[in-house]
Amino acid sequence: MSHPENVADPATAAESERYRQGRAKLLEVSGERGAAAMAGLAEVAPDLARYVIEFAFGDVYARPGLTLAQRELATVAALSAQGDTAGQLTVHLNAAVNLGLSPEELVETLIQLVPFAGFPRALNAIRVVREVLAERGLTAEPEVHAEDRDRYQRGAEKLVEIDGQHGLDVVESLGDLAPDLGRYIVEFTFGDVYQRASLTPRQRQLVTVAALTALGDTAPQQRVHIGAALNVGLSPAQVVEILIQVVPYVGFPRVLNAIRVARDVFEERGTSAR
Amino acid sequence: MSHPENVADPATAAESERYRQGRAKLLEVSGERGAAAMAGLAEVAPDLARYVIEFAFGDVYARPGLTLAQRELATVAALSAQGDTAGQLTVHLNAAVNLGLSPEELVETLIQLVPFAGFPRALNAIRVVREVLAERGLTAEPEVHAEDRDRYQRGAEKLVEIDGQHGLDVVESLGDLAPDLGRYIVEFTFGDVYQRASLTPRQRQLVTVAALTALGDTAPQQRVHIGAALNVGLSPAQVVEILIQVVPYVGFPRVLNAIRVARDVFEERGTSAR
Amino acid sequence: MSHPENVADPATAAESERYRQGRAKLLEVSGERGAAAMAGLAEVAPDLARYVIEFAFGDVYARPGLTLAQRELATVAALSAQGDTAGQLTVHLNAAVNLGLSPEELVETLIQLVPFAGFPRALNAIRVVREVLAERGLTAEPEVHAEDRDRYQRGAEKLVEIDGQHGLDVVESLGDLAPDLGRYIVEFTFGDVYQRASLTPRQRQLVTVAALTALGDTAPQQRVHIGAALNVGLSPAQVVEILIQVVPYVGFPRVLNAIRVARDVFEERGTSAR
Repeated sequence: MSHPENVADPATAAESERYRQGRAKLLEVSGERGAAAMAGLAEVAPDLARYVIEFAFGDVYARPGLTLAQRELATVAALSAQGDTAGQLTVHLNAAVNLGLSPEELVETLIQLVPFAGFPRALNAIRVVREVLAERGLTAEPEVHAEDRDRYQRGAEKLVEIDGQHGLDVVESLGDLAPDLGRYIVEFTFGDVYQRASLTPRQRQLVTVAALTALGDTAPQQRVHIGAALNVGLSPAQVVEILIQVVPYVGFPRVLNAIRVARDVFEERGTSAR
Repeated sequence: MSHPENVADPATAAESERYRQGRAKLLEVSGERGAAAMAGLAEVAPDLARYVIEFAFGDVYARPGLTLAQRELATVAALSAQGDTAGQLTVHLNAAVNLGLSPEELVETLIQLVPFAGFPRALNAIRVVREVLAERGLTAEPEVHAEDRDRYQRGAEKLVEIDGQHGLDVVESLGDLAPDLGRYIVEFTFGDVYQRASLTPRQRQLVTVAALTALGDTAPQQRVHIGAALNVGLSPAQVVEILIQVVPYVGFPRVLNAIRVARDVFEERGTSAR
Repeated sequence: MSHPENVADPATAAESERYRQGRAKLLEVSGERGAAAMAGLAEVAPDLARYVIEFAFGDVYARPGLTLAQRELATVAALSAQGDTAGQLTVHLNAAVNLGLSPEELVETLIQLVPFAGFPRALNAIRVVREVLAERGLTAEPEVHAEDRDRYQRGAEKLVEIDGQHGLDVVESLGDLAPDLGRYIVEFTFGDVYQRASLTPRQRQLVTVAALTALGDTAPQQRVHIGAALNVGLSPAQVVEILIQVVPYVGFPRVLNAIRVARDVFEERGTSAR
């Protein structure tokens, strides 16, 4: 069913500013692999391929405020947290490598995901990482820790450093009902995972905010981790950019709900994204 | 473990009214493919196969209020939005073709999904559409647009047409925090996707309500899009039917939460589903 | 990237108390299959494998309050409800068999899932069950019912038995808007599924609470089914243990949200988890 009244010459379309910008960005980000995926898609649904190019790459990836590597990290986090996205992860993990993210950063992104989305999502994505690295002849030099003492102590310090004393209060308020659950958050999330060096604190919060947005039904945790994102030095505008970056991967509803949380956090702090 | 005190003669069971009705509806909707899938399932879990036949087909698909093609469209939307349902999508896309939905309508259903569930869910489902169409020797004549000017203007008009001025107000209230996010909703969702002709406005809202229900944690968006469903001419009773239709695919909790939203919308408008 | 200042001798790590305990528990629960999966993972992300062993098995599976078979049932429910976890389900269904759960209990766990997560999640998991049983030379003796009369009557009685009169009131409050939806809950959920004998009422509630937690956006249903869990004889402490058990599979946010619901239910009943 074609609609002549709405159809411009394809050549014209291909040269629209957004399309040109999107196609250049697609090539910059994902190379020939991304272009080939779009060509395949265009056989069945040409406008869907055009929307990927124009909207995801021409509008979103082309925005200022985050580097392309940061955008790719948010994308990988959102795809991994969401599940059933192995095809897209293959494209975007390759893109991440193209943009200079190290194998260690990619593995670490998935380790950061564990406390928020559970092991299965991380393990599924690790399988894709393994394939992508193998195909490119890359290996990840693992960051290995073995220290198993004082996890609560160092976790509590990290939690206060990231979230403020308020964070520890929240965890300890579980003490009447499920004290070990609070303890696991301190020990595992902050005593193990947040101690690691392969991502910067800003990268960790970027990954966390993107993943929580992809999961949905995480407003209380978004509140904490958007606050933590500001604490580690991401600006309100960058937090908004992380949320905009994941729109093409999770849709508008999850992002609109997250924006509502971000607005509350910014207002409480008397700060603003503009 | 069989429970003789509860087991009637299978012949009797096979002839229960719901079972007979369900089996006839299963054959009408999904043909031999659906029957074969149920026979395979019955080897491991015969009552689970019986529940599919009795509940999904005998109770739900047999209901009045929506055509079978509308029911199948809601099913395809809910399965696609949910993810990890390629097996079920194969059955239901075939059923959709059996019921007279065109390849163009199926592709367009997935394009409609993008703003709400993101590209990955749509792209995964497009892959299944491609296989189903190829196996049946069908092709989708693509609806192709190229016009890239005045997207905001035409999107804003469409948004007001679908949601009323209130919809535009909501989007523009993002202006202080994430103005481009509001702009993308107007331009992409309403300026690109909602302009397309391969689905009617009622089909679009049916698909959207089904998909939002499958996603979960979308109450504010359900409120908007249930309202829009009424605006484009679906009746309150039809909205309720869309929600009942997706119960077998997403479970009761998502639907009960959506019913709560629908009730609020109907009450605000002084309308009713009965 | 290795961090010498943080790295103890691997031999020491391997002998940390949590690691030793976790490894023993991993072997007890999932046998050589689980150990092999962890060895494969350790090639790419050794600390991620260590976290599975230390946190999931050393901390969580080693807890008192639920039997290992109960923990495995909660895990299978959470993985199945979540979707895109076939790899993990293979490991945990094998573990469930190792721990003495019968093929009938595993099939029934997935039948219990249907009203809450829909047929697709149950059917996908049944496919994995079928493979696991076939590989082990096991078959499930199906529990087969055929009785199709008085489903509302017997469902309403079961609903009152499980949830109290309040449960029936909630369902019947749908009468003004979607009376058949309420009827399906009574007939299908309580008249069909809850009548079955292959799981005990406590197992059903354990499965339901785990699945609702994995799904997310189910707070009203968690409220009902945590209450029902207490009604059928699970203790508040056991409910908390079910929630802690699924942390490794669904992450902390879903569980923290569920703990909030559990706290409300316990307070309303003047009971406590400690």
